[in-house]
Amino acid sequence: MPEVLRIHLDQMEQEFRRILVKFGFDPKKAEQCARIFAVNSLDGVYSHGVNRFARFIRSVKDGHINSHADPEKKHSSGALEQWDGGFGPGPLNAVFCTQRAIELSAEYGIGCVAIGRTNHWMRAGTYGWKAAKAGFVLIAWTNTNANMPAWGARDCHLGNNPLVLAVPYENEAIVLDIAMSQFAYGTLEVYRLSGRELPLAGGYDASGNLTTDPGAILKTERVLPMGYWKGSGMALLLDILATILSGGLSTKQITDHGSEHGLSQVFIAADISSLGNHHIIPKTISDIIRDYRNSKPASEAAEILYPAERVLRSRKENSEAGIPVDQSVWKEILGL
Amino acid sequence: MPEVLRIHLDQMEQEFRRILVKFGFDPKKAEQCARIFAVNSLDGVYSHGVNRFARFIRSVKDGHINSHADPEKKHSSGALEQWDGGFGPGPLNAVFCTQRAIELSAEYGIGCVAIGRTNHWMRAGTYGWKAAKAGFVLIAWTNTNANMPAWGARDCHLGNNPLVLAVPYENEAIVLDIAMSQFAYGTLEVYRLSGRELPLAGGYDASGNLTTDPGAILKTERVLPMGYWKGSGMALLLDILATILSGGLSTKQITDHGSEHGLSQVFIAADISSLGNHHIIPKTISDIIRDYRNSKPASEAAEILYPAERVLRSRKENSEAGIPVDQSVWKEILGL
Repeated sequence: MPEVLRIHLDQMEQEFRRILVKFGFDPKKAEQCARIFAVNSLDGVYSHGVNRFARFIRSVKDGHINSHADPEKKHSSGALEQWDGGFGPGPLNAVFCTQRAIELSAEYGIGCVAIGRTNHWMRAGTYGWKAAKAGFVLIAWTNTNANMPAWGARDCHLGNNPLVLAVPYENEAIVLDIAMSQFAYGTLEVYRLSGRELPLAGGYDASGNLTTDPGAILKTERVLPMGYWKGSGMALLLDILATILSGGLSTKQITDHGSEHGLSQVFIAADISSLGNHHIIPKTISDIIRDYRNSKPASEAAEILYPAERVLRSRKENSEAGIPVDQSVWKEILGL
Repeated sequence: MPEVLRIHLDQMEQEFRRILVKFGFDPKKAEQCARIFAVNSLDGVYSHGVNRFARFIRSVKDGHINSHADPEKKHSSGALEQWDGGFGPGPLNAVFCTQRAIELSAEYGIGCVAIGRTNHWMRAGTYGWKAAKAGFVLIAWTNTNANMPAWGARDCHLGNNPLVLAVPYENEAIVLDIAMSQFAYGTLEVYRLSGRELPLAGGYDASGNLTTDPGAILKTERVLPMGYWKGSGMALLLDILATILSGGLSTKQITDHGSEHGLSQVFIAADISSLGNHHIIPKTISDIIRDYRNSKPASEAAEILYPAERVLRSRKENSEAGIPVDQSVWKEILGL
């Protein structure tokens, strides 16, 4: 087993910032980007935090991420705007779009920003948390390169196109952050490295049989869409919607690039403070969650958690003990 | 096996209209409502067409559906409006909201209508087809009574909250119409009646084991959320969003009624004709579908269909041969 260090949030953020400045980010952007990677790690989403940071820097070096690009407005239809991401840093572009969708929703009740030619936003939840903590509803999704077969197919023509749905909840948020594959590639890697089987079938082995062996699935790349035909259909529609609303690139066009860059994303915000029932919305949400938590567990081991509850646990634990990082991962980062 | 009649669309529509007028619908509403039930049947969605019609009439007789109610605007935030459904007929209210969301999107680029105190809209796809054939994008969902356990739970605290995503496609549409349970209750009934096993596990039997036996699942009511924790999380968020955006009732509150009425629904339309890239959108969508259809089937039996392709087949077959209806179902309708 690799040795695991515990790095405190501030130290991780500072290290990321140093490296980003070194690779050409202006100080303010470096600070913002470092913060996102560090908080993703704090929240337990290591695959899109510390474990992905070195690869992010490689994409900057390769020129697939343009650290200087800012989003530019291409078109406005009022509450619906199209922006060009200029192949800029995905997390910065996505934060910008979230903020812009919030502004539009504050003006129109609902606002939508679609952005083309942007890059991987890392963790979908980042933008849900941002909007929900500001008191807004967010529905957002991204396309990806082709990394999932359609239901009934054996080669990849769909992205797993992560989706986030977020609402404010008490002092925190309820944030659902899901890819359209049953298991994200990062999750398959984690299971494979720790020698564990998946809790449920996650894809197909070389013989075409459903399997819980993460290594076999990583070999075939035949990951299972969540809910079989349902996740397959959703992935197709999310790609079409992201592509046409942004005027950007589809999963097919991104895949033809060879490396995953130039993604299309959609951010829809709603200003619930503008609604007729705004004063009772916090109670409405708390009542729904209270009832949800009254569910009877199917077994003694089962926990009935709402989306984001695990994140809050990781955040607490990692704030206290430091963020767990494989020694080799941290060493590579220190050497950047 | 029950004897199956073939009833032509016009005859079915005429019969439904006769009955709706008899039960107090004004002629124009009767015509619109009859059309929806008949077309749902033509499109192969019998569970929310002809097979549900008698139950719909019972809800009118019970007073759970108020045939005279029209939606009333409660609140406007510009492109986001809240309406009260007055416990009116679900399909008529939903058509109204779709149309109103389209109007808002034509004005603002994107438009959202949330309606509370409405009723079962029958088939989610109805509204997707309507918007997409008019050239608009639609994202819409409804809550339901509690009919699905959360992931890890054994009693029902979630609705299966159907969702529709629709875009125009050539002269037709791509319409994804999915409940958050892996199989709809109507589908379980169809399998049970025909003595078939489900193609994949759809829920739990009385011993708490996953099963493909539709009868066992109907007994426990422990249907499986699509994608396990993913469909469970989505169902929770869709309920919260529908409830707070509409100011209407949550799954919990609807369930406390005892009978499923007074639902909350959301309709988001986008006017793609207003976008900077509007002239290439049809080609963009066709290119994505062409690539999707280039998927290699996993087996000789597998077909790679896009969402709505089966509907088009049913529509063609039932237009030619008539709509298949169990003799007993049709006899009950004729007797109304």
